[in-house]
Amino acid sequence: MKILIVNGCNLNLLGTREPEIYGSKTLSDIEAEIMQKCEALGCECGFFQSNCEGAITGKLHEARLSADGVILNAGAFTHYSYAIRDAIAAISIPVIEVHMSNIYAREEFRHKSVLSEVCKGVICGFGSEGYLMAAEYLINNSKGAGNERN
Amino acid sequence: MKILIVNGCNLNLLGTREPEIYGSKTLSDIEAEIMQKCEALGCECGFFQSNCEGAITGKLHEARLSADGVILNAGAFTHYSYAIRDAIAAISIPVIEVHMSNIYAREEFRHKSVLSEVCKGVICGFGSEGYLMAAEYLINNSKGAGNERN
Amino acid sequence: MKILIVNGCNLNLLGTREPEIYGSKTLSDIEAEIMQKCEALGCECGFFQSNCEGAITGKLHEARLSADGVILNAGAFTHYSYAIRDAIAAISIPVIEVHMSNIYAREEFRHKSVLSEVCKGVICGFGSEGYLMAAEYLINNSKGAGNERN
Amino acid sequence: MKILIVNGCNLNLLGTREPEIYGSKTLSDIEAEIMQKCEALGCECGFFQSNCEGAITGKLHEARLSADGVILNAGAFTHYSYAIRDAIAAISIPVIEVHMSNIYAREEFRHKSVLSEVCKGVICGFGSEGYLMAAEYLINNSKGAGNERN
Amino acid sequence: MKILIVNGCNLNLLGTREPEIYGSKTLSDIEAEIMQKCEALGCECGFFQSNCEGAITGKLHEARLSADGVILNAGAFTHYSYAIRDAIAAISIPVIEVHMSNIYAREEFRHKSVLSEVCKGVICGFGSEGYLMAAEYLINNSKGAGNERN
Amino acid sequence: MKILIVNGCNLNLLGTREPEIYGSKTLSDIEAEIMQKCEALGCECGFFQSNCEGAITGKLHEARLSADGVILNAGAFTHYSYAIRDAIAAISIPVIEVHMSNIYAREEFRHKSVLSEVCKGVICGFGSEGYLMAAEYLINNSKGAGNERN
Amino acid sequence: MKILIVNGCNLNLLGTREPEIYGSKTLSDIEAEIMQKCEALGCECGFFQSNCEGAITGKLHEARLSADGVILNAGAFTHYSYAIRDAIAAISIPVIEVHMSNIYAREEFRHKSVLSEVCKGVICGFGSEGYLMAAEYLINNSKGAGNERN
Amino acid sequence: MKILIVNGCNLNLLGTREPEIYGSKTLSDIEAEIMQKCEALGCECGFFQSNCEGAITGKLHEARLSADGVILNAGAFTHYSYAIRDAIAAISIPVIEVHMSNIYAREEFRHKSVLSEVCKGVICGFGSEGYLMAAEYLINNSKGAGNERN
Amino acid sequence: MKILIVNGCNLNLLGTREPEIYGSKTLSDIEAEIMQKCEALGCECGFFQSNCEGAITGKLHEARLSADGVILNAGAFTHYSYAIRDAIAAISIPVIEVHMSNIYAREEFRHKSVLSEVCKGVICGFGSEGYLMAAEYLINNSKGAGNERN
Amino acid sequence: MKILIVNGCNLNLLGTREPEIYGSKTLSDIEAEIMQKCEALGCECGFFQSNCEGAITGKLHEARLSADGVILNAGAFTHYSYAIRDAIAAISIPVIEVHMSNIYAREEFRHKSVLSEVCKGVICGFGSEGYLMAAEYLINNSKGAGNERN
Amino acid sequence: MKILIVNGCNLNLLGTREPEIYGSKTLSDIEAEIMQKCEALGCECGFFQSNCEGAITGKLHEARLSADGVILNAGAFTHYSYAIRDAIAAISIPVIEVHMSNIYAREEFRHKSVLSEVCKGVICGFGSEGYLMAAEYLINNSKGAGNERN
Amino acid sequence: MKILIVNGCNLNLLGTREPEIYGSKTLSDIEAEIMQKCEALGCECGFFQSNCEGAITGKLHEARLSADGVILNAGAFTHYSYAIRDAIAAISIPVIEVHMSNIYAREEFRHKSVLSEVCKGVICGFGSEGYLMAAEYLINNSKGAGNERN
Repeated sequence: MKILIVNGCNLNLLGTREPEIYGSKTLSDIEAEIMQKCEALGCECGFFQSNCEGAITGKLHEARLSADGVILNAGAFTHYSYAIRDAIAAISIPVIEVHMSNIYAREEFRHKSVLSEVCKGVICGFGSEGYLMAAEYLINNSKGAGNERN
Repeated sequence: MKILIVNGCNLNLLGTREPEIYGSKTLSDIEAEIMQKCEALGCECGFFQSNCEGAITGKLHEARLSADGVILNAGAFTHYSYAIRDAIAAISIPVIEVHMSNIYAREEFRHKSVLSEVCKGVICGFGSEGYLMAAEYLINNSKGAGNERN
Repeated sequence: MKILIVNGCNLNLLGTREPEIYGSKTLSDIEAEIMQKCEALGCECGFFQSNCEGAITGKLHEARLSADGVILNAGAFTHYSYAIRDAIAAISIPVIEVHMSNIYAREEFRHKSVLSEVCKGVICGFGSEGYLMAAEYLINNSKGAGNERN
Repeated sequence: MKILIVNGCNLNLLGTREPEIYGSKTLSDIEAEIMQKCEALGCECGFFQSNCEGAITGKLHEARLSADGVILNAGAFTHYSYAIRDAIAAISIPVIEVHMSNIYAREEFRHKSVLSEVCKGVICGFGSEGYLMAAEYLINNSKGAGNERN
Repeated sequence: MKILIVNGCNLNLLGTREPEIYGSKTLSDIEAEIMQKCEALGCECGFFQSNCEGAITGKLHEARLSADGVILNAGAFTHYSYAIRDAIAAISIPVIEVHMSNIYAREEFRHKSVLSEVCKGVICGFGSEGYLMAAEYLINNSKGAGNERN
Repeated sequence: MKILIVNGCNLNLLGTREPEIYGSKTLSDIEAEIMQKCEALGCECGFFQSNCEGAITGKLHEARLSADGVILNAGAFTHYSYAIRDAIAAISIPVIEVHMSNIYAREEFRHKSVLSEVCKGVICGFGSEGYLMAAEYLINNSKGAGNERN
Repeated sequence: MKILIVNGCNLNLLGTREPEIYGSKTLSDIEAEIMQKCEALGCECGFFQSNCEGAITGKLHEARLSADGVILNAGAFTHYSYAIRDAIAAISIPVIEVHMSNIYAREEFRHKSVLSEVCKGVICGFGSEGYLMAAEYLINNSKGAGNERN
Repeated sequence: MKILIVNGCNLNLLGTREPEIYGSKTLSDIEAEIMQKCEALGCECGFFQSNCEGAITGKLHEARLSADGVILNAGAFTHYSYAIRDAIAAISIPVIEVHMSNIYAREEFRHKSVLSEVCKGVICGFGSEGYLMAAEYLINNSKGAGNERN
Repeated sequence: MKILIVNGCNLNLLGTREPEIYGSKTLSDIEAEIMQKCEALGCECGFFQSNCEGAITGKLHEARLSADGVILNAGAFTHYSYAIRDAIAAISIPVIEVHMSNIYAREEFRHKSVLSEVCKGVICGFGSEGYLMAAEYLINNSKGAGNERN
Repeated sequence: MKILIVNGCNLNLLGTREPEIYGSKTLSDIEAEIMQKCEALGCECGFFQSNCEGAITGKLHEARLSADGVILNAGAFTHYSYAIRDAIAAISIPVIEVHMSNIYAREEFRHKSVLSEVCKGVICGFGSEGYLMAAEYLINNSKGAGNERN
Repeated sequence: MKILIVNGCNLNLLGTREPEIYGSKTLSDIEAEIMQKCEALGCECGFFQSNCEGAITGKLHEARLSADGVILNAGAFTHYSYAIRDAIAAISIPVIEVHMSNIYAREEFRHKSVLSEVCKGVICGFGSEGYLMAAEYLINNSKGAGNERN
Repeated sequence: MKILIVNGCNLNLLGTREPEIYGSKTLSDIEAEIMQKCEALGCECGFFQSNCEGAITGKLHEARLSADGVILNAGAFTHYSYAIRDAIAAISIPVIEVHMSNIYAREEFRHKSVLSEVCKGVICGFGSEGYLMAAEYLINNSKGAGNERN
């Protein structure tokens, strides 16, 4: 089994940007934790970060053939990128939406995700542990394919 | 450590109500799974279900003194009960909002939770596993008190 | 065949509350008329009134097994109780929404029913006769199960 | 006593148009049923169908002098014809709004009736039986004149 | 003369819940102050608190016969309970809406009260003194019955 | 201690304008009552009425130095004068918003006050007694400075 | 010079329909008054009334060649007929919108006219005199062609 | 009989400001025309212009005793001055709202008048002749007092 | 194969009405071009124009049996006629919505078509060539029946 | 003459992504068809697809000098990319907006195109034939430059 | 060359009012800085401050003849004074809108300026330096007359 | 000191695109002017333009360490790029938003900037001089770090 972890715009700044909201771990720190978790559970994983919407869209297309599940923190793209939404809808593997902060407790514009409707599920507010929770879910439920509502 | 699992209106029907959305496990089945998980992780747990908003509000008040964390699936109250929202805000232990289905992929009125803003975080779309994910998070992070945004 | 007639909040005041809107019959008067009608048509009936949303939700759950149809005047709950809405959606017997007054000719907030979408049909504006019309329909169409849209 | 049954746009297609929504009876079948019911209750009835808003408005004007009550299924005019609304408000006999399908369980634009506010009452979701229920109500309550809110 | 003081959801927590908003007096402290004031002005008073909307509705029904005025702080029910609104409209004694905090200076959802329109008047922002101001008004104006707009 | 009572546009017509809403007392009558009350409680008071928004703004500026509290009935300015709102926010003494009628039970446009958010509190619906209630509160709480939310 | 006076839906009922709003004159009475006025001012006039939107549209097309100005009271069509709006925009003679009642002081849906934007001007609230005022304006300003904004 | 003509903000600039919208006559020119018309019809008239909302409010108060009718072009105050609206509602003589341009054919914010609802009627789009039409109406209907809706 | 071309309100004025928007060809000119095109492609065609919504609705009903496809330019009815929408939905042949101008580049009210959702497709902005493009599509795809979304 | 065909985000997946909506042809298949058509009509064509908004914007800039017309299916960018909109507005060659599916018959968010207002016209709902229709139009009307409204 | 600097409501309090937002300079301090700047650049300047909307309107009228440009900080009038907006639109000299604070980063109601659309440009967020930037722009571009959009 | 000037989508077309809005200077011309100004004031400057949102986001990240201030004209990204907004919020140097045209005087969608709230200030409507004004401000105020509201 293989999981792809995709992080969107500005998440390369983790650890330096507004640490009171996002904590002090860098993206590398978090990716290391996820890798450790996956290895412990006997699962391969890959990582991708981009500030470019098109690159994320393209990566999701690739994942259709090369991965069994995706964990996606799209950053601010969450709130307006119908391009990423369509990419999620177009691939048949489960995509889990993760946010480190509780987006429903922040600015009004962050309350609406245009991605949630086509994802398998949403995990938000648990800091970097959200990625681990998502990974564990995907590994434990690896036979369930796609984002069908359940 | 002690966790309280609170289920709101109509969740007593689990297993019989719209199984294509909510699955075929009964609430008892799910509570048994949670108990097993908690015991495995060395944590006590309690359960409460009510169709009555006032009873849930009252139970949350009690939890302030008797529990270290709450897992709450408020059912349809999620979408309008400012009374439950105020109860969550009034207690100083972390409350995690859980939904079995992906509420953002269902009817328009289910997209808005009036509770999320005052909860620690949200987990939705993972069926009954969502409760286990929440329990594991609370146990692993038992020192973190309250619903402060992070 | 058995019909359950459920009345929601404030309907216990019928006959005394705003008689220019709701008429001068008490709830008992109306229940007696319904019973007479049902007996005449060879049908059993039961009655329930509560000011408590949770009690109504619970009664609807029970009706799933004990009744063949429900006539529901939810009073002001009509306009915001998604808990009752979910209870209606969760049971497989037909539920008819009745209002004594023409709710579309009153205050703006009464124009929207969150229940109608999941009920079999709506009857409003005919005073206490609305209950009788609903009962007669249920008895004449007793083989038709559920709230499927037709 | 005399009742006028008015059907609006597209209802001439009943029986052929979307039978999964409107059933397989033709408008003639339904009119025959209504006539039988009225005769049984000792009441005269007349029928009118038009796809033309102006013709319906004119027919309602006539009814003021020639009928004791109107049963109106205005079809799609229900949702925007303030001309028909004004015609209803301008005549002093009761008008009952009937819809065969449950309009509140269909497309968003069908949830709003601009006619309900000036009608005596609304019956919807009971297929062609809705006409019979309305007729029976009018005959049983023939002394009550006009659309005053009650 | 007799006044009923009704407090809604979460107000049992007064003194412990968010004291920076609601002050450090408990509900018992406040009720004692009100009683003292009423006695000083030669008026009887009763108290009721519930987290249950249905219980408050029922208490208001009772008050119709047993009290000359009601002071109501409905807590979060203020913002969505049309059931309580209808109960106020259904009784003929004056009801004064009180809030300890200035609800118009807090979260957006607290700016709208669905109760104000049917109450005699509104007092908000004066902490526990608001109850005393309301009591004094009722006693000084005991002949004026009902919630008519003035 | 000194209190300033400010009345806004059209309130010079009190007693003659729509007496069914505002009562038959003139503004002078009401000012005399307030003066009597203040004197009884050992407090000085001043009065100001203007139909001019700028004059009211200016008077509030002056009050910052010359008064210990303000009672403000801004009339229709309540609903749109951000200039008066800013003047209230700019001075450090408590301002109490008073309305003789229950503005929430009148036309839609009167339901929104742009001033409430920056005032100490709101009293409405008690006729001219509202001014007296406000005065008494200010005198009893003279040490509390400013409009901070409590 | 020739003026065409066009009345829309339900205006054939004038004198009998809601006389407290529209007065007791019939349409014939009003047309007679207009004719008298026009003759006195040396102007020819024609009349047209229809409950049919299409007929009014067609009449306006004709007027382009046969009249020098139109006085139009479109009745309820005022609020939604973009067909009539386009007909007005398509002809090069001035069209004056007249309403007997003050439509801005009636139901919300009557506050919006979709015709005003393309008419020369609007006269409303003056009963049947509105037609005479419009006629006099057209005759006095007969050289001004079209609905250009001025 | 005496008529007062009130012009609001910026109307002192008539003749110089945006002549393609408002024409090239100055306010004095227009006032002279009105005076001539009034004299011809045996009626006295007075004029008032101010850029100050408070001054207009005060002038309307005075008119209650000194005039039999008011013609009001409030300029931009039309769109937000609830103070002027209340002044109109507070006086018992008829007020006619006049606009030289067709406000419904201009910017969106000019489509809404907060005054229309309390005026006798509205005349707009006829340039300076609108004032004359209003004057003539008032003189011809001098016995009709107040702004009651007709 | 047979195609019906239906034109709605005001389109009889083509060539004379606002030629800067609609061009200088008359409806006859355009119909001749369409006929020529159809003949060239071996297809029969019929034409219908009406300013009357009901006549268009009726014509669409007929087309169900007599035509293999419809090209519809409903004019202003496009924006509000749910009657025509229902007629399209009720017939099983493909209907193509055509507009000569780019309706999305004109007034706000023209941006919304209530017909598009039930049509096969939309062509707009290509002047009279839009009809030819639609005809060619229908002829080339004559086997595809109905408006199913593709 | 030269035409540029630009496809936006996710359209590289054509043939594999949701074939029930988009058909089973790949983008290459479609491009081959377009090329064949263009060659038949004596016109050159070029193709571009990108998931990157910036690349599409840049390609449109280039087209200003290198092409005579553009056929653009922007995919999900259609609904929010004001950057692409500005690029279209900035170039002087005609751009035709094409969608394979009928976007008005799909999810709400797809009903609004921010591009349509600045395009020459819109073709949607005809599958891959839409591209051919657009190409044919451009070739037949090659002299018409720009997106001016017609 | 001559510049007029106009400050609106509450700006006379600068230096004392909310210094954390507006800084500690008084209006006189700021006016002295502007004067110094203007003198250095060889330009005359005048100052005006009023809490009265009508006085500002009048001052702008005067400026038409006596100044070459206006710098306007209208304070809270910015958000609702269509009277000031019309005054700006009526004069032919450039008006620059200045705000000391970044109004888009403050309360929601401050995000909308009704003046911006008719001003030359907007400068906000730079404290008192904003006035100097505006002055320098006007002096450097003194030949550019009016508020035409560029 | 070092300033970075960032221009977003379509601004590479300056001088050729819609010169009546944006003027005839090319981006190079403007950059040369800014460089000259900066040199004159003893400040270094760098330039960046991209049509790609992700590139701009990345450039802003870099600027955090390499520059003392940013001048940003994000073009159409201004109105929807929450990715760029988050990048601005994540860096601790001041960012000034500049627009050459007065965006509040153009299309509705340009009135809303999602960036303003997190920028230091906004300058718009002054053509290319806006960049120079921003540069001068940054150089004069180089000690003030960050976008804190002032």
